Amino acid sequence: MTVAWTPPALPPLDPALAARLRALVDGKAKPPGALGRIEDLAVQIGLIQNRPDPRVDRAAVLVFAGDHGLNEEGVSPYPSAVTAAMVGLFLSGRASVNAFAAAIGADVRVIDVGVAADLPGHPALTVAKVRVGTRNAAREPAMSETECAAALQAGFDAAQAAVRGGAEAVALGEMGIGNTAAASLVLHRLGPAPLADCVGAGAGHDAEGIARKAAVLARAAARSDAVEPFDVLRQFGGYEIAAIAGAALGAAALRAPVVVDGFIAGAGVLAAARMVPELAGFCVFAHRSAERGHALMLEALGARPLLDLGLRLGEGTGAVLAIPLLRAAARLVTDVADLSEVVGSP
Amino acid sequence: MTVAWTPPALPPLDPALAARLRALVDGKAKPPGALGRIEDLAVQIGLIQNRPDPRVDRAAVLVFAGDHGLNEEGVSPYPSAVTAAMVGLFLSGRASVNAFAAAIGADVRVIDVGVAADLPGHPALTVAKVRVGTRNAAREPAMSETECAAALQAGFDAAQAAVRGGAEAVALGEMGIGNTAAASLVLHRLGPAPLADCVGAGAGHDAEGIARKAAVLARAAARSDAVEPFDVLRQFGGYEIAAIAGAALGAAALRAPVVVDGFIAGAGVLAAARMVPELAGFCVFAHRSAERGHALMLEALGARPLLDLGLRLGEGTGAVLAIPLLRAAARLVTDVADLSEVVGSP
Repeated sequence: MTVAWTPPALPPLDPALAARLRALVDGKAKPPGALGRIEDLAVQIGLIQNRPDPRVDRAAVLVFAGDHGLNEEGVSPYPSAVTAAMVGLFLSGRASVNAFAAAIGADVRVIDVGVAADLPGHPALTVAKVRVGTRNAAREPAMSETECAAALQAGFDAAQAAVRGGAEAVALGEMGIGNTAAASLVLHRLGPAPLADCVGAGAGHDAEGIARKAAVLARAAARSDAVEPFDVLRQFGGYEIAAIAGAALGAAALRAPVVVDGFIAGAGVLAAARMVPELAGFCVFAHRSAERGHALMLEALGARPLLDLGLRLGEGTGAVLAIPLLRAAARLVTDVADLSEVVGSP
Repeated sequence: MTVAWTPPALPPLDPALAARLRALVDGKAKPPGALGRIEDLAVQIGLIQNRPDPRVDRAAVLVFAGDHGLNEEGVSPYPSAVTAAMVGLFLSGRASVNAFAAAIGADVRVIDVGVAADLPGHPALTVAKVRVGTRNAAREPAMSETECAAALQAGFDAAQAAVRGGAEAVALGEMGIGNTAAASLVLHRLGPAPLADCVGAGAGHDAEGIARKAAVLARAAARSDAVEPFDVLRQFGGYEIAAIAGAALGAAALRAPVVVDGFIAGAGVLAAARMVPELAGFCVFAHRSAERGHALMLEALGARPLLDLGLRLGEGTGAVLAIPLLRAAARLVTDVADLSEVVGSP
């Protein structure tokens, strides 16, 4: 087994606190269970934060960006140059993720871990570029071991910086033309699941495009029998996917809830959860994506997402839309009176 | 047909603007359709507000409160006095709806249209009390025609005041011990649907409690064959349910999106939509409630809710949780660059 990056141990989740949080929620001025999944979320957030008074006032949205050598094979309808263009749009505040973050009140930071272009400096940009795009995974490993470890560490560091900077939850998103293809390979090996079930329309393939993409991915898959999470990331992943794996672990290690966007962010979190199974308890799965393999991925993660809105954009857009639900859940614990105050003690 | 309250004519929704909004959304810097239901919501909000640049920065949460004579029959596990106690909690800012509204940024106003207690004055309370609770609908009409019209008008006025005060969307919630029972009767007649399919656990009945409640409702239903919406409200509804019907129409008449909470708010909106079918286009259905009849009610309204979180509290809590989705949808139209700016014109 390759150990080129050592994942952190995650702090324990305290069962006594879980019981206390559940009792707090049950005792609120409402019929028990009447707030459904918001109640479960409240308990989960308190447990992750290790406090009876959870807070999600400040949320950081981290968008990891990288390019894919695999895109030479036409796995996306868009050229790789669109990655840098979209990063430029994130930094100008005029992409969908910015609009949603402005609507709900969260900060967006972009982390360049492998965009195939030099990006001008910007206060909202962290440059942690490992390489100008991965290698073409249809022909060779997408990354060297060193590169894969560097991407994991860059994600880890970015998430920890966000939490140390005051973020009470970390939402993980991505940008990288061709990265649904890479995510499909990661799911195939780590689900595991038959490759054909893991391949979907991505940013907008028709049936013919999906078939072409599936053929490329079959070639890539035939090249390596990797099944160990680090190896799978290195052979088939992307710098942004590896960074998301590291970021999820980095946030969880500091007891911040990890809000996971869709299919590609999910691939990173799947790899991280295969390294450290306890990670699942620190994750909130924001939504069920319209991308074909996402249902399988959620199943592989034992995850039940909060939203189901037919989203398939990425950028962290779905994760951002879930943040208000976390905030509401935290406020349920801290702001709502006990039922006994309203109707008297039994 | 009884005409004791004349509903407003609603303004037309402009098909040319709908096409324009759809083209705007399709042209944004993302693959077409990639934001799923948020895209449809963006078009709907723009259409309701009749502008190509929709806004939902300011949202009002209106919680209508009233008591139910039917509660003498034990249709709820809670005594009617809990209604006034919960209204007190709303006004102190320590109920679930306040916590959620604080989490997402919205103002809560309580409108007393029929609480069976005198409530002390409060800046967030509008007193428009029609009567101290409805009559016992198992024995006689819940309201007189005059009372029902007064409740409709109170809701209409409250919603129009909120919109004139700057609210760009109006979320409708309620409080009233016993009001799932009244809502079940409204659904039964206006769905229409078999009574047994309309009766559920409400605030927390067990199977025996539900059976008892169903028997009471069967007695009430046997008393009147009302099927016309005003008549159904008057025979079986509640002041808060009638007020919600009026509020939905009042907000829609001023081109504000109506965000509908769960089963009881839905009953009010169902009555209003049976008076003015065009209302449906002005409504955003926030969530699928865990209350048994809600699926049938949504079907009767032709509605597809945004959230499905197992909520069954009322107070407007589910509607509040949907407000960030409206805000994000509006911002998609106004804040996001066109794709042509990113990848050049075709």
